[in-house]
Amino acid sequence: MEQVSANKAFGGVQGVYRHASASTGTDMTFSVYVPPHAEGTKLPVVWYLSGLTCTHANVTEKGEFRAACAELGLIFVAPDTSPRGPDRNGDAVADDPDGAYDFGLGAGFYVDATQAPFAAHYRMWSYVTQELPALVAANFPADMERQSIMGHSMGGHGALTVGLTLPDRYKAVSAFAPIVAPGQAPWGQKALAGYLGDDPAAWRRHDAVALIEDGARVPALLVDQGTADNFLEQELRPELLKAACETAGIDLTLNLRDGYDHSYYFISTFMADHLRWHAARLGKD
Amino acid sequence: MEQVSANKAFGGVQGVYRHASASTGTDMTFSVYVPPHAEGTKLPVVWYLSGLTCTHANVTEKGEFRAACAELGLIFVAPDTSPRGPDRNGDAVADDPDGAYDFGLGAGFYVDATQAPFAAHYRMWSYVTQELPALVAANFPADMERQSIMGHSMGGHGALTVGLTLPDRYKAVSAFAPIVAPGQAPWGQKALAGYLGDDPAAWRRHDAVALIEDGARVPALLVDQGTADNFLEQELRPELLKAACETAGIDLTLNLRDGYDHSYYFISTFMADHLRWHAARLGKD
Repeated sequence: MEQVSANKAFGGVQGVYRHASASTGTDMTFSVYVPPHAEGTKLPVVWYLSGLTCTHANVTEKGEFRAACAELGLIFVAPDTSPRGPDRNGDAVADDPDGAYDFGLGAGFYVDATQAPFAAHYRMWSYVTQELPALVAANFPADMERQSIMGHSMGGHGALTVGLTLPDRYKAVSAFAPIVAPGQAPWGQKALAGYLGDDPAAWRRHDAVALIEDGARVPALLVDQGTADNFLEQELRPELLKAACETAGIDLTLNLRDGYDHSYYFISTFMADHLRWHAARLGKD
Repeated sequence: MEQVSANKAFGGVQGVYRHASASTGTDMTFSVYVPPHAEGTKLPVVWYLSGLTCTHANVTEKGEFRAACAELGLIFVAPDTSPRGPDRNGDAVADDPDGAYDFGLGAGFYVDATQAPFAAHYRMWSYVTQELPALVAANFPADMERQSIMGHSMGGHGALTVGLTLPDRYKAVSAFAPIVAPGQAPWGQKALAGYLGDDPAAWRRHDAVALIEDGARVPALLVDQGTADNFLEQELRPELLKAACETAGIDLTLNLRDGYDHSYYFISTFMADHLRWHAARLGKD
């Protein structure tokens, strides 16, 4: 693991790191904020999965999470959203043949692809749930018994599906403007078909609403959604998550935020609220 | 004035605007955050002047000022750092002939240039002290009797020189890692010679330490400076401001921040402190 940069911020260190990923067969870049802490203590870890077109850098620069993480004693990890080329043979990583922003590079959808040519590198599920946690555990003062996960948009989809699949590991799960049912929305349908094939049965493990319908459970979910979000009605559809949680008896807090859009201006406004909600479920030193 | 974008954030609106500037003869872009407020009320205005290479966007995206401005009821205005081409005849705006980052585009140093070819457009002093305040007063719920000014690096130089020159207008003056004595540092010497000519006597009105030596006074100054700032010893030289303030009897609070660098990770860490210091001097509704 190579340190790309390290900047002191709010008493801690905002770092950016690069490593050769076995999951994706490429170099991967991610950021970690470590708050001020007593030498030798281990801290809870909040995972943040980003949305379409983003890298680790968007939330790192615009997310306004460091003040709250410093106050609450939380490590904050932000992975990239897809593999990016070249791979270790120097070959390009497959992209959307049409060059669209919603599939391929920057749009890994947090799945392990089964379809050519994506299966070779698009293994973001394994990357964010296995490889990167092991790397973080080995290199940072992280208490891996106290992890939680959040994300935005496509990364909200990732946080919900990862959290619902591994409820014992992630003590809190929340999202900003998540894609809650990719199998029922254009972005998700395109991506899941492209990565996992045309049979929608294969998509259900990567669809939060379908996971809940199929029996996945967490004690509680927190979702914030702006009402002025351009993607609300067609792509995000929080009402489907609300209905699924009601049927399943999951305690969903769905905050509809009047006038907020899909941007980091929205995310940063409610970031500290989410981090406090996570900290309450992670236990604080 | 044209609205480029508007995003709800922390209950208020983060806007970006463009207008044809009479001062510079070019279009100029700036950002304004208006916090939540009761209809009809007018709010104090904090001016933020940015550093070398920046536009309005750097602090707008990375400054983490909105939470505190929303809490304190402060409008936050961020201008660009230089004119940028084309001008109204479609001609390019003069740049450093060597293409360096520290002179020309993105490096206006908040002066009205007297030297060709810069005198035609580089009129940032007039722009930030006259034209843009009038535009802000006309278009936003701004109480122009309650203004203050802050800035970073070259913009800290701008904030100090503007604040020292117009002490009745700006009720608080602060800076992050400012160039305090451009006449005694390479960046400043290059820029002031280029914009104002080779006679250092012409530079003193645009040099905070020289202004204080020549009799300019403000009741108090607040400066934060990181000790790991690469530019500290050669370009910023806060000890010169400290000595000038001691001689002049100006109440300077100079916070040397251990391990912080010159970046927005540093600025964002101490932004809320500065805004509280400003709010205390601006009076709060």
